Amino acid sequence: MRADDPVENLIALLAKLPGYGRRSARRAALRMLMAPETRMLPLAEALRSAAAAVRPCSVCGNLDTSDPCRICGDNHRDHGLICVVEGVAELWALERAQAHHGSYHVLGGTLSALGGVGPEELSIAPLMARAAGAREIILALPATVEGATTAHYLAERLAPLEVQVTRLAQGVPMGGALDVLDDGTLAAAFKARR
Amino acid sequence: MRADDPVENLIALLAKLPGYGRRSARRAALRMLMAPETRMLPLAEALRSAAAAVRPCSVCGNLDTSDPCRICGDNHRDHGLICVVEGVAELWALERAQAHHGSYHVLGGTLSALGGVGPEELSIAPLMARAAGAREIILALPATVEGATTAHYLAERLAPLEVQVTRLAQGVPMGGALDVLDDGTLAAAFKARR
Repeated sequence: MRADDPVENLIALLAKLPGYGRRSARRAALRMLMAPETRMLPLAEALRSAAAAVRPCSVCGNLDTSDPCRICGDNHRDHGLICVVEGVAELWALERAQAHHGSYHVLGGTLSALGGVGPEELSIAPLMARAAGAREIILALPATVEGATTAHYLAERLAPLEVQVTRLAQGVPMGGALDVLDDGTLAAAFKARR
Repeated sequence: MRADDPVENLIALLAKLPGYGRRSARRAALRMLMAPETRMLPLAEALRSAAAAVRPCSVCGNLDTSDPCRICGDNHRDHGLICVVEGVAELWALERAQAHHGSYHVLGGTLSALGGVGPEELSIAPLMARAAGAREIILALPATVEGATTAHYLAERLAPLEVQVTRLAQGVPMGGALDVLDDGTLAAAFKARR
């Protein structure tokens, strides 16, 4: 097939979807080509309208169809309580878990000396501005070296402000069998026993 | 999120991709929403243009941007040699393998008493019309009960015509270790030894 072929082009773009390769892209393309009206055009339209409608929230960095986003604009939520997350995926996960009734702040990554990500690359200055008026900052960062480094850095930056800084509890996950858990989690859960 | 939300709608459609579920659809949607210009709009356009350009070949049933398709319209191919396949996926696979230099005929399925697929549901009448002028019909149907039933049925229908009917060889796949092969393949390969 020619490189400028619409089918080849579609397969190449589908192959970039997370978890997809050329083989699965070919399968998806073929399945959609069997029913272009019901499968392809609705997806094309959904992509186009989502791309047109969704933008980052200028307050917290969430992706939504309104700015400020629905969470920042919701008067029933406690905006004195700001949960700091690495990315939008984590924000959505916490929302699905209905774990938080305050607002969020999306950092856009974690500090990484190796990856060349310094404080300037992250949304830290806007967080400082928001933190000045907040009651509590919850650092919901990943339990990795970068996440811990970032949380430590933020805690130090936030210390001079009159705001409480907390972190997510670490321990045994719900439904987690003890014998398959990693040593780090087990030790942390043991130490933080209550 | 509301049901008519563009993001929810996109996730719902992405979740219908083969191998995808809500979780992977959410990940894909989020990744694309981070870069709408470079990821979402090109895919939307590719879907739209493929849907507009691709149609079934009126001769063989292949999906292509021209009708007759590039294979049926290629004068360098041997159109006296027709390879019968279940679907377009199998046709594409044989083309990738460069296994066949003739033309194809897409049945659109295999006979299935349980699935309620009779000869009228498949592209068999057009095959008979084409077979009358052909030298050889290669039945490249799957090595399943339905595939074998369909091949048997076609062989009987084709018998009165002056056309040679052949089937793909069965045996040990390339690189196949004998100890992990199923018994049916081993027995067939043993029986067909040469």
